[in-house]
Amino acid sequence: MAQFINSKETLVTEAIEGVLRTAKGRLARLDGFPHIKVVVRTDWDRSKVALVSGGGAGHEPAHVGYVGAGMLTAAVCGDVFASPSVDAVLAGILAVSGPAGCLLIVKNYTGDRLNFGLAAERARAYGIKVEMVIVDDDIALPDLPQARGVAGTLFVHKIAGALAESGADLETVCTAAKRVVSDVSSIGMSLDTCTVPGSPKEDRIAAGKAELGLGIHGESGVELVDFDGARAAMALVLSRLAPHAGSGPKVALLNNLGGATPLEMAVLAEELAKADEVVGIRYLVGPAPMVTSLDMRGFSVSLLPVDDASLAALQAPVPLPDWPGCLEINAPEVLPIPDGLTPIKPIPSARPETAEFISRCCDVFLAVEAELNALDAQSGDGDTGSTLAGASRALKDAIPRLPLADATQLYRAIGLELSQTMGGSSGVLLAIFFSATGDAASSGLSHVDALKAGLKRVQEVGGATLGDRTMIDALTPALAALPEGFAAAAKAAREGADHTASIVKAKAGRASYISEDRLSGHNDPGAEAVAVLFEDIAAHQA
Amino acid sequence: MAQFINSKETLVTEAIEGVLRTAKGRLARLDGFPHIKVVVRTDWDRSKVALVSGGGAGHEPAHVGYVGAGMLTAAVCGDVFASPSVDAVLAGILAVSGPAGCLLIVKNYTGDRLNFGLAAERARAYGIKVEMVIVDDDIALPDLPQARGVAGTLFVHKIAGALAESGADLETVCTAAKRVVSDVSSIGMSLDTCTVPGSPKEDRIAAGKAELGLGIHGESGVELVDFDGARAAMALVLSRLAPHAGSGPKVALLNNLGGATPLEMAVLAEELAKADEVVGIRYLVGPAPMVTSLDMRGFSVSLLPVDDASLAALQAPVPLPDWPGCLEINAPEVLPIPDGLTPIKPIPSARPETAEFISRCCDVFLAVEAELNALDAQSGDGDTGSTLAGASRALKDAIPRLPLADATQLYRAIGLELSQTMGGSSGVLLAIFFSATGDAASSGLSHVDALKAGLKRVQEVGGATLGDRTMIDALTPALAALPEGFAAAAKAAREGADHTASIVKAKAGRASYISEDRLSGHNDPGAEAVAVLFEDIAAHQA
Repeated sequence: MAQFINSKETLVTEAIEGVLRTAKGRLARLDGFPHIKVVVRTDWDRSKVALVSGGGAGHEPAHVGYVGAGMLTAAVCGDVFASPSVDAVLAGILAVSGPAGCLLIVKNYTGDRLNFGLAAERARAYGIKVEMVIVDDDIALPDLPQARGVAGTLFVHKIAGALAESGADLETVCTAAKRVVSDVSSIGMSLDTCTVPGSPKEDRIAAGKAELGLGIHGESGVELVDFDGARAAMALVLSRLAPHAGSGPKVALLNNLGGATPLEMAVLAEELAKADEVVGIRYLVGPAPMVTSLDMRGFSVSLLPVDDASLAALQAPVPLPDWPGCLEINAPEVLPIPDGLTPIKPIPSARPETAEFISRCCDVFLAVEAELNALDAQSGDGDTGSTLAGASRALKDAIPRLPLADATQLYRAIGLELSQTMGGSSGVLLAIFFSATGDAASSGLSHVDALKAGLKRVQEVGGATLGDRTMIDALTPALAALPEGFAAAAKAAREGADHTASIVKAKAGRASYISEDRLSGHNDPGAEAVAVLFEDIAAHQA
Repeated sequence: MAQFINSKETLVTEAIEGVLRTAKGRLARLDGFPHIKVVVRTDWDRSKVALVSGGGAGHEPAHVGYVGAGMLTAAVCGDVFASPSVDAVLAGILAVSGPAGCLLIVKNYTGDRLNFGLAAERARAYGIKVEMVIVDDDIALPDLPQARGVAGTLFVHKIAGALAESGADLETVCTAAKRVVSDVSSIGMSLDTCTVPGSPKEDRIAAGKAELGLGIHGESGVELVDFDGARAAMALVLSRLAPHAGSGPKVALLNNLGGATPLEMAVLAEELAKADEVVGIRYLVGPAPMVTSLDMRGFSVSLLPVDDASLAALQAPVPLPDWPGCLEINAPEVLPIPDGLTPIKPIPSARPETAEFISRCCDVFLAVEAELNALDAQSGDGDTGSTLAGASRALKDAIPRLPLADATQLYRAIGLELSQTMGGSSGVLLAIFFSATGDAASSGLSHVDALKAGLKRVQEVGGATLGDRTMIDALTPALAALPEGFAAAAKAAREGADHTASIVKAKAGRASYISEDRLSGHNDPGAEAVAVLFEDIAAHQA
């Protein structure tokens, strides 16, 4: 699959430059591209212990994302999944190490161990105090004495980083780091492999399967397991971690290996919080992409038993957006639904002439159901007539419940009825029309002005305007003419509705997706409905 | 493709619970799952204008990730790519709106417009002041008057949020929001479609192609364009934005649509910073996943012209990790490579007997090249003899340059020579051995103790220990016996080397990957090399 890169040779250096573009005063890189790819803090105080980590690229935001106050002092980057050179590591050490010395945090891969190890020797030859810890948190391969270093490494960065920032000496920082290394355990699961830039993607994991215990460089998992959803996946991962987890309070780090969506990761967090395979998981780091494997659709969980001191170090604030914090796990807080969600039922009141008027309007729509459906079939799904007829029947039934004697309340009540009985966009729009008309009427506007205010709101919400081949094309002129009487309004509505037959470029509603040929010569069904309504009212009043 | 979910029906509610698990005291949800999916701030002050946004799920971290001080007051979530119901929106409005009123920020999709619109009417009927802005920042469809709302919506959240947090009234907040809506423009590009939970993935975009102007719900792009790397992709996107961008200073928001890796996004950020299609891009939000389309491998750029006030609002700090900040774009800062990267050349000094000793040791390895290669062929790639012979030749050549009269410097110098001339892991490990021995000797240890210190360091870095079928199995007993003389050391080395033939479970180095059958009966070539060296020295000293 194509990727948003220019070439695999320039990928890592360009990405580092991209990060540095917005890091002025906080981060810099050392000269020496492309061989030396080292990002350092620029706000660094050499009286404190420096922390240097790194390794192959492809694990972003690790490691550059963790360079900053309270975590790493420098990150030494290799190419994708390739260890940085001895010279690059040495450059990193020399750039940031002062009298307090330097701790190298190395994940347990041969290339990293050797290159960081030899760089440490060369730095020591300059009299620099250098210590090195090797992180081997992966429990996937129980028979391999040299376990891999994976996302649990972040615990080392954070705890050692907090200590170094507080001014602890090298021995203290190193001892704390080694304790984390001995206590932390991690394992990952993935549904798909990663796409290494410049290489074809391996299609290794069959549908319905997941790999458990995979590495962060595309290494196959130790087991191919059946995949049966997020809950079972998290349970399996936690059950593997359980024997390593100890009994006290602990922190879980939930790492997105790159390609899982935030939705999936949040579901996994929920499953982790609810799970009982491991007791004592009290705090959570993430979910977030922290130590990724390019675009791998997978996750890993790392567990670390904590005491008050290590918890405080994990929770010490850092100005690094890629560190998601270490937060207590709680039950989700649930607030009651606010009052008012069930609309207040209007108090019915009688006014026979209003009842009759509403009933007659409804009958108009019932009479033209087939005609409107036929018109709508030209541009839509042919249901405008049926939709209006259905709402009309429901409204007729509701007449005894309506506040007929109170015009303001009546508009609102009709809006409410339509919102509950009339489907589709038109139901919502008519509900908005009558509700907004009621609001306007309650503020003292005349009926005509209130109806115009309702129409304005419909236009705002619906986005249609005059000439867009909607009911607005009939309703707007009708309301404009209404002060002159229903006959004038009816004439204006008819002209407006008939004009829609010549509008072949609909701009809103379903008709906007229809070809011009199919629209030409046919009135818009909504506009037609308005016209026949006004014509009927005018005829009865005449 | 499988996903880490339990069911598409429970996906969004479970994800919301997952987010709330670590949000105690900051976020809560309203009761009413699964129909009402509303997340609200719990630290909210009703004397300020409330900001309510939302829409379909699948755009995480939008919208829940932006609920908090300085951005949204509530997020109303639908199912994946589906508008929330009128009731859900109304619940959100009622839950957070006080006397200062409420601004609804709605992306321009029919369902969202209608449902938020009707909910606004129903809230107004309770006397709540509600305003609504409709964001339509997508420029992909120039002929469509109703442009879609995409990632530019975040500018509205942030600027309106900062104003509301500062205590501005509803009119001020709404006016500022409308100005952002009218000024912002966005467009996206993708290399692959997204995977909607429960639906088969559409394989729409051919290799070598990209879609320009896609929507955030899997809608096809407006154009299928040739994809020719990150630089051309960014140039194309910016060229489309240019006519909408205005001439003054502006902010770019670089959004990961979900499936691009951080490496890719950083490369795109670099290309954006370097590009000249749009002048005046001075600030950057991201790159980060902000308004995603599930796992879509794509990005979008949104541009907003800014004045001092809107910039200040964008840069106002918020305690929301999903808002990446609005940072100035600068040239990457580059620091010079530290001194010391080129190792200090030792000052040569003469000591004939040492020169002869070293030369003889080298000759030993030259003599057994074929024999060691044959042994190595049993478990590795058959080059141990050649590797040692090559290094021996180089070291003999280097003798005139060595500080032969200074033991400490000599050890270090040999380490340096080996690191430069001997390939593979063994070269690095021997370099570490001699460097660490030199360090130890410089602190006053005897030769034997210094050599033991070197060996200890090799074990730390290399990870092998006694019994792992490496040269350590000969070197350890040899150094232990060395105080009794070279004859004793040679005997111990030979016994150790011969013992490796019975070690069939190698735990480190290449032999750890080899079957037991192939290892049994053959000495480890590294251990054998140590043994023949000590035997030769002992024979010459006898």
